[in-house]
Amino acid sequence: MKRTSRDIRTANRYEVLRQIIAASPTSRQELAAATGLSLATVATLVGELLDLRMITEVGFEDSAGGRPRGLVAVNASGGALIGVDIAETYVRVELFDLALNVLARADEDMRPGESHPEQVVGHVAAAVGSVVAQAGVEGARVLGVGVSVPGQVDRDTGVAEYAPNWDWHDVPLLDLLAEHIAYPLYMDNPLRASAVAELWFGAARGRGDAVVVNLGTGVGAGLLLGGGLHRGVSNSAGEWGHTTLVLDGRLCHCGNHGCVETYVGAPGIMVNLRELAAESALLHPDDQTATIDALARGVAAHDPVALKAVRDTARYLGAGIADLVNLFNPEVVVLSSWVAAALGESLLHEVREAVARHALRRPLAATEIVLSAIPTDPVCLGAATFALEGALQTVGQRTAAKRTTPARSRTAPPS
Amino acid sequence: MKRTSRDIRTANRYEVLRQIIAASPTSRQELAAATGLSLATVATLVGELLDLRMITEVGFEDSAGGRPRGLVAVNASGGALIGVDIAETYVRVELFDLALNVLARADEDMRPGESHPEQVVGHVAAAVGSVVAQAGVEGARVLGVGVSVPGQVDRDTGVAEYAPNWDWHDVPLLDLLAEHIAYPLYMDNPLRASAVAELWFGAARGRGDAVVVNLGTGVGAGLLLGGGLHRGVSNSAGEWGHTTLVLDGRLCHCGNHGCVETYVGAPGIMVNLRELAAESALLHPDDQTATIDALARGVAAHDPVALKAVRDTARYLGAGIADLVNLFNPEVVVLSSWVAAALGESLLHEVREAVARHALRRPLAATEIVLSAIPTDPVCLGAATFALEGALQTVGQRTAAKRTTPARSRTAPPS
Ligand SMILES: [Zn+2]
Ligand SMILES: [Zn+2]
Repeated sequence: MKRTSRDIRTANRYEVLRQIIAASPTSRQELAAATGLSLATVATLVGELLDLRMITEVGFEDSAGGRPRGLVAVNASGGALIGVDIAETYVRVELFDLALNVLARADEDMRPGESHPEQVVGHVAAAVGSVVAQAGVEGARVLGVGVSVPGQVDRDTGVAEYAPNWDWHDVPLLDLLAEHIAYPLYMDNPLRASAVAELWFGAARGRGDAVVVNLGTGVGAGLLLGGGLHRGVSNSAGEWGHTTLVLDGRLCHCGNHGCVETYVGAPGIMVNLRELAAESALLHPDDQTATIDALARGVAAHDPVALKAVRDTARYLGAGIADLVNLFNPEVVVLSSWVAAALGESLLHEVREAVARHALRRPLAATEIVLSAIPTDPVCLGAATFALEGALQTVGQRTAAKRTTPARSRTAPPS
Repeated sequence: MKRTSRDIRTANRYEVLRQIIAASPTSRQELAAATGLSLATVATLVGELLDLRMITEVGFEDSAGGRPRGLVAVNASGGALIGVDIAETYVRVELFDLALNVLARADEDMRPGESHPEQVVGHVAAAVGSVVAQAGVEGARVLGVGVSVPGQVDRDTGVAEYAPNWDWHDVPLLDLLAEHIAYPLYMDNPLRASAVAELWFGAARGRGDAVVVNLGTGVGAGLLLGGGLHRGVSNSAGEWGHTTLVLDGRLCHCGNHGCVETYVGAPGIMVNLRELAAESALLHPDDQTATIDALARGVAAHDPVALKAVRDTARYLGAGIADLVNLFNPEVVVLSSWVAAALGESLLHEVREAVARHALRRPLAATEIVLSAIPTDPVCLGAATFALEGALQTVGQRTAAKRTTPARSRTAPPS
């Protein structure tokens, strides 16, 4: 509830590494200026990161009239991180170095009906094995695996409590994965994964309060408030997709009517298209990705039905995003995930106009709306970042007398 | 954007005084246990509060086997705080001692058409003069005056940017007030005032994330996240009243359609009643307070129209509050302000049932919904708390070499 001095120390450690990754090589003096921390605090945190081999000393620069300053840079090969994006229609796994470059990727499609937990675990285990083999990294260098799974998750117990699109209830996903994967495992959902990716590497880095709007099969909002992720008291904040936009409107799988998701999630966009032109060739029944791709091509070709379908969707989105602007008064709203990536600039343009029609003047004036600029899968990147944060969080324990191992590491990593 | 060490020191100072006010007398050891701060930090902060005469030493208690422990208590007569609640239909001013007991109160009615800024300033100045005279406190002991004004406010410049119910735009309210009032002035809006009152003295004290739902002429949500008030990047967060509940629904004075406020603000409740029974004797056209009071009496007398009108209102409220539960995942939602106070338990019961129909299971299970238990006007109390926070914020400056005066104190207080 309240931030302890250890929380603050961990947050500062994140902040310093984030800055080093963004601007390597850099000096302790530059880091102090960029983070607002004292030089002494920065020096201590840099020392910890050097001990962990996450960063290295890379030489000196002259300072005007003073002693040469030591420079540090991220030690890209000091470890590997794995991010797992379990989505409704696919599993994607990426392996990153410590500069968060993608070294290997594996994709597995999931057809409708393949969503049993054991099947999903099989896909994930195969893909994780594949990326480690592709990259040729030693197992001991994998610092952790972050797993993103849709819906409501209990990150402490590793249980997927409710994944509405699969009707999963209380699936002990990390326990199941731990039978196949020996690295430390961390779990959260795609809202929070893509938000953390924007905080570390994207449009929210170094900015004030930000909201990351995830537009995929499901939709939601990652909340970056006061420099960190707002999780709520039971890690389920951000369920914007299940806020009411149209009282008594379309039935949602959550049981409520008129949820935002039923109008702007990929299946909702298909309904928008069907209501506009039931016989449209753009519509690929039972195939969300094909329909969204067809819409994107249609917009590029100035197809009037595609343009109208995107405008109708943007009208719903604009009202829903204006709610976020009015409630959170953020500095930036980032549109992320595969639907936002596919519909891109044309969607962004329509959304900006629609938000301006619905939001209050004062918070609207303070808010910028942008597309995610993260070039790779932001959910994989964010999931890998959870593993990075996990590794940084254990620094205190590691340097203390008693070494603790992460709760989910059932066996020692192969070496 | 990021919390500096000075912000953290100020927040800790609030936390310690809050705890002393809640549980006087108390020891430094108890304060350390209750706040999670180190004993050394508590001792420093207690020393500052003693220097300010906000608290006093009041004796010793035995500790099992150890030295007697010094006890401190709030110094109720160490200063006075004034809270001003400028509402759409009245101005209320209360004067508090440092234990936040009400020592004097002045109310001024505002009839429709009396809402010109100069008229409002006249009412406030008269009422402030009245409470100081009633309480017989010396001007020098008034630490500050907190002013709550509806709508969007710039608390740094003291400008009421937009008060929708009066059509105020960019009114320099604190400059106007400073011509009549010589004490340090602080300004914010009723959402944030009642939220801060709950944080210091009400249902949110010592709890995790909380949302304070204000139900009056206008409606909004005060957001208590991570132990403090979430303001957003331009102090306009919490505008829940202007989030869309019914796309293309009732026209709102903000220009949007279907805002929450148009269904659950006092004028919206009058529309609900009129839609149900246009000729109802409960309806007092052009008189919100009389209508809400009649509804409350009707519910107590089991009048079917009154019961149905409250149920209809609770249905809208339940969907809107479920949005807050799904987005913020709070530990507690507090219903505050005069409409909530008037409709009380019957409204609370209906709202709880309606929220349960709309919210997701996991955040719903973590959330308690309660009525504000603050016995006096929570907006006056919260406004006075802004003045208290202002006085505590200047501690650093006061003990430093250069004494700074609050920006809005134009002349020295009379002595
Ligand atoms: Zn829903
Ligand atoms: Zn409105």
